[in-house]
Amino acid sequence: MRITEFHITPIAITDPPLLNAAGLHAPYALRTVLELVTEDGISGLGEVPGGAESVAGLEAARALVLGRDPFQLNTLSLALKQLFRTDPAEDDLALERRIGRTYSALEVACLDIMGKATDRPVVDLLGGAVRQRVPFAAYLFYKYEGAGGALGFAPDPAASGWAAARQAAALDPAGVVEQARAMCAAFGFQSLKLKGGVFEPALEVETIRALRRAFGPGIPLRIDPNALWKLETAIRWGRELEGLLEYYEDPVRGQAEMAALRRAVPIPLATNMCTTAFADLPGSLRLGAEDIILSDHHSSWGGLRASLELGRICRTFGRGLSMHSNSHLGISLAAMTHLAAAMPNLSYAVDTHYPWQSEEVLTGGRFTFEDGSLAVPSGPGLGIELDRAALAALHANYLACGLTRRDDALEMQKVQPGWKFAATRW
Amino acid sequence: MRITEFHITPIAITDPPLLNAAGLHAPYALRTVLELVTEDGISGLGEVPGGAESVAGLEAARALVLGRDPFQLNTLSLALKQLFRTDPAEDDLALERRIGRTYSALEVACLDIMGKATDRPVVDLLGGAVRQRVPFAAYLFYKYEGAGGALGFAPDPAASGWAAARQAAALDPAGVVEQARAMCAAFGFQSLKLKGGVFEPALEVETIRALRRAFGPGIPLRIDPNALWKLETAIRWGRELEGLLEYYEDPVRGQAEMAALRRAVPIPLATNMCTTAFADLPGSLRLGAEDIILSDHHSSWGGLRASLELGRICRTFGRGLSMHSNSHLGISLAAMTHLAAAMPNLSYAVDTHYPWQSEEVLTGGRFTFEDGSLAVPSGPGLGIELDRAALAALHANYLACGLTRRDDALEMQKVQPGWKFAATRW
Repeated sequence: MRITEFHITPIAITDPPLLNAAGLHAPYALRTVLELVTEDGISGLGEVPGGAESVAGLEAARALVLGRDPFQLNTLSLALKQLFRTDPAEDDLALERRIGRTYSALEVACLDIMGKATDRPVVDLLGGAVRQRVPFAAYLFYKYEGAGGALGFAPDPAASGWAAARQAAALDPAGVVEQARAMCAAFGFQSLKLKGGVFEPALEVETIRALRRAFGPGIPLRIDPNALWKLETAIRWGRELEGLLEYYEDPVRGQAEMAALRRAVPIPLATNMCTTAFADLPGSLRLGAEDIILSDHHSSWGGLRASLELGRICRTFGRGLSMHSNSHLGISLAAMTHLAAAMPNLSYAVDTHYPWQSEEVLTGGRFTFEDGSLAVPSGPGLGIELDRAALAALHANYLACGLTRRDDALEMQKVQPGWKFAATRW
Repeated sequence: MRITEFHITPIAITDPPLLNAAGLHAPYALRTVLELVTEDGISGLGEVPGGAESVAGLEAARALVLGRDPFQLNTLSLALKQLFRTDPAEDDLALERRIGRTYSALEVACLDIMGKATDRPVVDLLGGAVRQRVPFAAYLFYKYEGAGGALGFAPDPAASGWAAARQAAALDPAGVVEQARAMCAAFGFQSLKLKGGVFEPALEVETIRALRRAFGPGIPLRIDPNALWKLETAIRWGRELEGLLEYYEDPVRGQAEMAALRRAVPIPLATNMCTTAFADLPGSLRLGAEDIILSDHHSSWGGLRASLELGRICRTFGRGLSMHSNSHLGISLAAMTHLAAAMPNLSYAVDTHYPWQSEEVLTGGRFTFEDGSLAVPSGPGLGIELDRAALAALHANYLACGLTRRDDALEMQKVQPGWKFAATRW
């Protein structure tokens, strides 16, 4: 079985004006869809964060992938390393970190093909499902009013239900509580994560308190200040948050500060910023930087099988495991769901931005959550099928929107002239 | 696809009188062959170290395995843990260590079925081969004269070639050099490993020197005293062995002594005794106990997929990787070869006792080495087929020989009355 077609499609998906430590989401989030097709017509899909760099990485791999058997993932990984190695002295783990996103798109598409070729869901190629449904968490954002996309900061008057609520501003605790109520009513999430690092810690902690008052102690809460807090700030507010948080995600920057915080505050610390690739694990363990690693198969962890290997490392060294997310569509969501279903030690509901998106590139439309969880798609491979008209429309968005990379600071400056990113703000 | 048949066959295979730190190999080595068959008649094979305990472990799992889909390895592992957990407080990693052998037999047989069901070699279910041939090392032993089996210490006068040479005594450097020449002539091995811990270190080191003189510096050498040397002995002789050894395997006992030795002697240290399961890895890294981990999919590492996960850990934490062996037949050898072919970071030629065995349970007879390496079997699954008559004959051996567990000390006492195992001898 040989791969004979290789299609890269950059797309732009409507994204509302969500606030975060890096600034503001642009009206469109960029993704890249990869489709590989074998000589016998089996198609495999992958989706990764988008933009010109992502497209260039895949484009560079095209010649290396064509003609290859999709089952040969180990040699694909080695060949990709060889292709992208510019410095013979570059550490192998550093190189893996650099090519993780490109490899991930290729691996997921190959696994999709392997599943279809063997009439098995991808999860079965990962050892099989230990859970039939994967729990996800509500991902709450401070945000400006607006729908994103062509509407920008304007609301879409035709929207209803969550699609209407999604457009509302949420710039204070009451706004976030309303957002959470609407999102949970639509998706049934049973854990809440607040993206922080936007306002003064006192306001963000008050938002957590408001969520606790609104949802009660049965709904786990998390806050993610995206490493914007000083160590003393994180300690001070960490003490206030004891008993309120399921975990405290990246309040401070870097493994050393995370380790110091961990010694000072008894709330479990989670990260997708201080330990983001295998190269970071020796330091993580030496310092004791975190309790929970938020994996991301699209990122420098490098794919589904590598994420399961990370899972083994977490079990071996006593770390919890869950998953981080960026704005994404259903190819990513399907891959995340297959992967999460195969992880014996998935300790927490998985992050997803999916409720913030309104489009889809799959036939049958968008995934439906029940009680905050998704069933593992049961068809062969990822269990999904590309809607080519939808893909073409989102590609047209990409060409039209003029964005080629994510730059949340630039978007923020359009609203707050002179705004600058600060690595440590409070 | 459901597993509907479950056959456990304990066998006894002829083993020559090989000396080692634990005493002397009995005339028969015990193995257990597992065969699973699906409702549609696909058969999968596994082979693990044998004896009554091994049979009992698999017997206990029978009811849990029947009716199961062989692709569901993750739930099989969880169910097995649940079955074997007697103390609810038992650490999960300790439990994994305990059930590793049983799980390994089941996993390999399931992977064999999965490969046949998908018309793919097992290596392709492990990400595909990064090498088409797997290098193995000559495994040299001090030994008494004798063929093992019914002949015991007598030689078989009908034997020729390596089968004749295998019967010769090797109780001094010259004898081991002759053994190595004959084994390499027959198998083409290009690395030599000496099982030590039998004679005084001076004699064993002199044997290494004799091998170097006979084979020259192009053939890597290793010695494995099986943890029988005191730290000061290992340091003293380690200094003599500098420049002679590719690696120094388990000269001393336990991670702390290995770590102390590693600080004192610059030869890479390998282990299959001080770090033998995932539970041992945190201590290994904390202490810096070894440079190379010798995995064993049959053992407490627990199977092929777990061994690849161990491989990822070795890459992440800068450890080398190779494989340990016990007396075994071709089902084990096939599984080892598929696994080794899939390991990107297999740093050394793999151990195997296979030349010391003369029997086989596979149609087509014994595997043929070329230049010390084996081609990955190319058929679906493990690429092997059970010879039922041979299996029956080796099962009859098991019933007749009266052995139910390996006890090298007992065998040694038959030759040297009063011999006692000493955890540290020199």
